[in-house]
Amino acid sequence: MHVKAYGAHAADRPLEPIAIDRREPGPTDVEIDIAFCGVCHSDLHTVRGEWGGTHFPCVPGHEIVGTVRRTGPEVTRFTVGDTVGVGCMVGSCGECSSCHDGLENYCEKGFVGTYNGATSDAPGHTFGGYSEGIVVDESFVLSIRHPADQLAAVAPLLCAGITTYSPLRHWNAGPGKKVGVVGIGGLGHMAIKIAHAMGAHVVAFTSTPGKCQDAINLGADAAVVSREPDQMAQHAGSFDLIIDTVAASHDLDTYVNLLHRDGALIMLGVPEHPHPSPNVGGLIFGRKTIAGSLIGGIAETQEMLDFCAEHGIVSDIEMIDIQQIETAFERMARSDVRYRFVIDNASLDAAA
Amino acid sequence: MHVKAYGAHAADRPLEPIAIDRREPGPTDVEIDIAFCGVCHSDLHTVRGEWGGTHFPCVPGHEIVGTVRRTGPEVTRFTVGDTVGVGCMVGSCGECSSCHDGLENYCEKGFVGTYNGATSDAPGHTFGGYSEGIVVDESFVLSIRHPADQLAAVAPLLCAGITTYSPLRHWNAGPGKKVGVVGIGGLGHMAIKIAHAMGAHVVAFTSTPGKCQDAINLGADAAVVSREPDQMAQHAGSFDLIIDTVAASHDLDTYVNLLHRDGALIMLGVPEHPHPSPNVGGLIFGRKTIAGSLIGGIAETQEMLDFCAEHGIVSDIEMIDIQQIETAFERMARSDVRYRFVIDNASLDAAA
Repeated sequence: MHVKAYGAHAADRPLEPIAIDRREPGPTDVEIDIAFCGVCHSDLHTVRGEWGGTHFPCVPGHEIVGTVRRTGPEVTRFTVGDTVGVGCMVGSCGECSSCHDGLENYCEKGFVGTYNGATSDAPGHTFGGYSEGIVVDESFVLSIRHPADQLAAVAPLLCAGITTYSPLRHWNAGPGKKVGVVGIGGLGHMAIKIAHAMGAHVVAFTSTPGKCQDAINLGADAAVVSREPDQMAQHAGSFDLIIDTVAASHDLDTYVNLLHRDGALIMLGVPEHPHPSPNVGGLIFGRKTIAGSLIGGIAETQEMLDFCAEHGIVSDIEMIDIQQIETAFERMARSDVRYRFVIDNASLDAAA
Repeated sequence: MHVKAYGAHAADRPLEPIAIDRREPGPTDVEIDIAFCGVCHSDLHTVRGEWGGTHFPCVPGHEIVGTVRRTGPEVTRFTVGDTVGVGCMVGSCGECSSCHDGLENYCEKGFVGTYNGATSDAPGHTFGGYSEGIVVDESFVLSIRHPADQLAAVAPLLCAGITTYSPLRHWNAGPGKKVGVVGIGGLGHMAIKIAHAMGAHVVAFTSTPGKCQDAINLGADAAVVSREPDQMAQHAGSFDLIIDTVAASHDLDTYVNLLHRDGALIMLGVPEHPHPSPNVGGLIFGRKTIAGSLIGGIAETQEMLDFCAEHGIVSDIEMIDIQQIETAFERMARSDVRYRFVIDNASLDAAA
């Protein structure tokens, strides 16, 4: 099957219309008409080859919402017409201890990325959601229970939502807990909404004073300008958990110092240049943790989607046509988006 | 009361005989005749002023074993003649959340160190166990249940023992868990013994090939020369917990890479120069943790002593007279001790 898509032929080329093939649905496959696809910073890093290892042509996109068009004969969980989602993964080894524990995101063989992942389909690497349709094994397809008019804003939950939900759940955000969120962007704005819905006391940290009111509107109980030492000092030693969404190199000690005993600072982004080495004494005097977290497993992603549907949580988005993708990339690169671009995939109709 | 001690009058002076005063036991105090005192690296750092903040004269020593000589009228847990221990702390605020949780070691006001801590006793700072006797509130005194002929070797449990026992317990070392111990010294040799007794599979890491057989003798199931990449690679992604006792600056990624998903690298030492900044990606891809741990609370210290008595665990020691302390410091500074010097405090009799 040919489907219309937008992809890059090389790291120094813009995204452009491209025709790709999708496999015929196998016994356990679901064929999905894509309605919306979120624009994640990883998409830009990958198409520009900034992380290395990009296979071209590259069709990015791993925040996919759409409708089931066809199902293979052995599919049991989905039927034609269902509203479904696909996130960052479309496969994993299924045999390692992480897969066994439902944590396909930590598959020891490496999960199969929704784009740029290894596949037996031609041309040997996966194509993502900047396309009209996709075929995915049902075990990597999620059910969407949000109202129909929210589906565009649901798309970013498939990456930004689960990336923040998973550590909040794993490190026990909830009533009686004080949770910090560093950075109010695509990930951070979701972390604020979700942590608030979990019942935690939420404090947002931003280097942009103009975002403080946004943070409150998103559900934060307080917002702190991270460059203001006096504001920071008021929160010393008080946090159970801080979710750090900032990938740029920055001082981690600042946030370790805000943790209470047994508190944890969770890093979600890999910086291009290393952070200054954190002070080990800051960890020792307080039994504090610095840890990392990577998206979430499929079962947990479904749990997150259901939690968000129940609490009326979606992403704050700006809708674009696929033809505006390069402008969107430029704006995203300078954090000029509140807070996630989402492609209306119907605009692919107009593509060559 | 005057008691004989050994102390330093300045950072550039050797330890020498010194007479100090101990307070008369108050209502809840226990007066202890000190039989043995372990020699901890912290003692050397402090008397040499290497950490700053040393009050002189400085009488170090916080691995104390002795016999109760007198008790205050309100003391309930100890009687004259009991064999007791004192570790790194002789007081804490008693009011903060850490004290409330029995974690006086993380007292938010800072615990009162057994030496160089703030006290209302003259001259305003505490004197440690390089002395004939000490007076301590009973709530910071531990019961020793080991046989009488093991008491010298029990002394290092009060610091090296609890410093390793606490993180092993907190991060759930036990049957079915694979535990690494980095560095086979005063702390590391205790970590091996305790982790083995807890039922974990223990692997020791050393840069000194000659210590590998020692590690096996101490209870390790395997020993790895950390400078041999092939040996290290065999353990990639396999550890639940690694206890890192090495304070010198070193590459943490090496050990993060050996952790399994959800594994934790626990740092016990503060390096003089920072470790190279750990790779955040190594934490994210595996939800791994770098954390710190500082000695242990009083209740946990008692638990550790009872655990060690039950399992026949003591430190491997070299006994010295107090007059040999400077030589012992020199040898300790170059890791030439297997694995802890302990002072026979009876040798203070000969002091001026």
